[in-house]
Amino acid sequence: MQSLPDSTNRLIEQLSRLPGIGRKTAQRLAFYIMKSDNEIASNISKALIDVKEKVGTCTECGCITEIDPCYICTNPKRDNNILCIVEEAPDIYAFERTNSFNGRYHVLGGALSPLDGIGPDELNIESLTKRIHEELEIVIATNPSVEGETTALYIAKLLSGYNLKITRLARGVPVGSDLEYIDEATLIRAMEGRTLV
Amino acid sequence: MQSLPDSTNRLIEQLSRLPGIGRKTAQRLAFYIMKSDNEIASNISKALIDVKEKVGTCTECGCITEIDPCYICTNPKRDNNILCIVEEAPDIYAFERTNSFNGRYHVLGGALSPLDGIGPDELNIESLTKRIHEELEIVIATNPSVEGETTALYIAKLLSGYNLKITRLARGVPVGSDLEYIDEATLIRAMEGRTLV
Repeated sequence: MQSLPDSTNRLIEQLSRLPGIGRKTAQRLAFYIMKSDNEIASNISKALIDVKEKVGTCTECGCITEIDPCYICTNPKRDNNILCIVEEAPDIYAFERTNSFNGRYHVLGGALSPLDGIGPDELNIESLTKRIHEELEIVIATNPSVEGETTALYIAKLLSGYNLKITRLARGVPVGSDLEYIDEATLIRAMEGRTLV
Repeated sequence: MQSLPDSTNRLIEQLSRLPGIGRKTAQRLAFYIMKSDNEIASNISKALIDVKEKVGTCTECGCITEIDPCYICTNPKRDNNILCIVEEAPDIYAFERTNSFNGRYHVLGGALSPLDGIGPDELNIESLTKRIHEELEIVIATNPSVEGETTALYIAKLLSGYNLKITRLARGVPVGSDLEYIDEATLIRAMEGRTLV
C-alpha cells in the first residue's frame, strides 16, 4: 500500500489534534489546502503565529486581548458597578453581540469539576475578590450545566460575606423553542421563575 | 459592542475559508488555539508551509507526491498493464487502503461539468492518451455521480478507437447496507449487474 507523502501526513496529524476535527475531516482539509494556491496555507500559517504572538490574557478580567488591560476594562463608559462572571472568554463575546450589557466581565477560566481535578485554585477566583467594591452587583453567568451550577453556588457562597447584590441569569424556556420538546428540568425552572406580565 | 482582537478575527476569517468550517467552528478552533500552548499553533503553521513547499503533482499520473515521478509510477512491482482512472488524488488513497489494486493510477483532476465550465481541456485527459499502450486495461473509477458518469462515458468513447480493454467499477449495493434504505437507482444497477454465485 502506498501511503500519503510525509508532509501531508504530518499536516493531517496536526489538524486532527484540533477539537471536532477527526482524521477524515483533517484529510479533506489537507487535500483542499494542497489543491489551493499557496496563499491560503501561508495566510492561515501567518494568522496562527500572529494570534499566539499578539493575543494574551487581560490581567484584570482574564479575557483575551492584544492590549493589557483590555478594551472593556479600560473603557470609562462601561458601568463599574455591575460585574458579569463567565466561565470562558468566548462567553463575553456572546453577551457583547447582544448589545444588552454595559458592565464589566470576569473570566473564571473554566468551571469547578472535582473529577477533572479543577478546584477553586485552578480558577481565576482570587483575583475576583480583589475587584469587589461597594454598590457592586455580581451577575453569575456560568453555563447552565452541572459544573456551571456548582461553580455558581460556590461563588455565591464565597461572596455572601461581602454584602453585595448577587444575581444569576434567568433560567427558562429559550426564545423560539417549542414547549413540547423542552426538557423537564428547564420547564421546572421556567415555571418556578415565572414573571408577572 | 466590544469585538474580538484583530489577530483573532483574522485567524477566524482564514479558518472559515476552509471547506466545511463555518464561522462558529472557526471561532471555536481559534479560541482553542489561543488557550492551548504555543506548540499547537506553531506545529500546524509549520506543517502548512511544509506541505505547500514539498508536495507537488506527479507529472506522470497527477497524484500528489514529494518526489516526481511518484512512488506508484516508479514502483517496478506495480502492474503496468492496468490503469485506474480517478477524479481526484484522495481517491487513490481510498483504493490503496484496500490493498486490492496493484496497477497504476491516473488522476483527472475533476470531472466534466459544463455548468461549472469544466470541459475536457480542464482535465488531465491529454496526458492519459500518452500512457496508452498495447495490452492495457483501463478501469474507469470516476465517482458514481452525474458528473462522474458523464466523464466515464466521455473517456470510454475517447478511448474506444484504441482497441483497449475498458472496464468500470461495479455499481451495486454497498457492503453492510440495508436493502430497505437503498435508493432505486442503486437497486436497478445492482439487479442489472447481478452475478452468478
